[in-house]
Amino acid sequence: MSEPPPTDRRGLIVLTLEECERLLEAGSIGRIAVVSAGEPLILPVLFKYAKASIAFRTAPGEKLDAVWQSLPAAFEIDNWDTKARTGWSVLVRGQTETVEDETRIAELESLGLEDWVPPEQPTTWVLIHPVEITGRRID
Amino acid sequence: MSEPPPTDRRGLIVLTLEECERLLEAGSIGRIAVVSAGEPLILPVLFKYAKASIAFRTAPGEKLDAVWQSLPAAFEIDNWDTKARTGWSVLVRGQTETVEDETRIAELESLGLEDWVPPEQPTTWVLIHPVEITGRRID
Repeated sequence: MSEPPPTDRRGLIVLTLEECERLLEAGSIGRIAVVSAGEPLILPVLFKYAKASIAFRTAPGEKLDAVWQSLPAAFEIDNWDTKARTGWSVLVRGQTETVEDETRIAELESLGLEDWVPPEQPTTWVLIHPVEITGRRID
Repeated sequence: MSEPPPTDRRGLIVLTLEECERLLEAGSIGRIAVVSAGEPLILPVLFKYAKASIAFRTAPGEKLDAVWQSLPAAFEIDNWDTKARTGWSVLVRGQTETVEDETRIAELESLGLEDWVPPEQPTTWVLIHPVEITGRRID
């Protein structure tokens, strides 16, 4: 008989880093939280998890421009079955970086990140470099 | 011919407050962002939208205990069809309040909020009182 998976104090199953990374690699849309003018904000984003970082694009000219330079950010993906009351979530905490280097931008462009709405203006690539990756599951 | 719906600078359709509230009323699981020790954090929560506030329960003893007293918070729900590249999101920005009053707690308990994992310890009700509710849609 195999060991039951570890659970947290709320009784949720704790995902391994490997499981979290597999879910991040398979994901396409997640949510970013940043602090803007002292208040938290959540934004859905299309993303890729590549080279151990979360990569996404932002439209310029928005009030969040300054936020992306180098700030703590959180990133979350999840998937729930509300009928079965099961699902999972993965949380990434890290630091943002806006990518300026042309070679690195070309690399990011080659990832095949989707655009659901074609951008009318040039976009900026932002990375979140994870400091912590955690996940939970309810079976 | 009816007017096309208003779009934002990214080309996303802007939801009315009425549409946002209808989606909040129909929702069951969302995500909260708060600032803890200067860094943003995202947590999935089961919630109810009642009396124009987001209501959810937290387990006590967690490191976030102090966060819920009265702090700016963001709350987000969304629903995406990644094949069709359509979906919507609603963002609530507001202030948290922990509920101590027994009468109000009884009212909240009567909302029928689900518990997917039965809490092992007593839980605390937290409200987010919206300051701003916004939503976007991609058709």
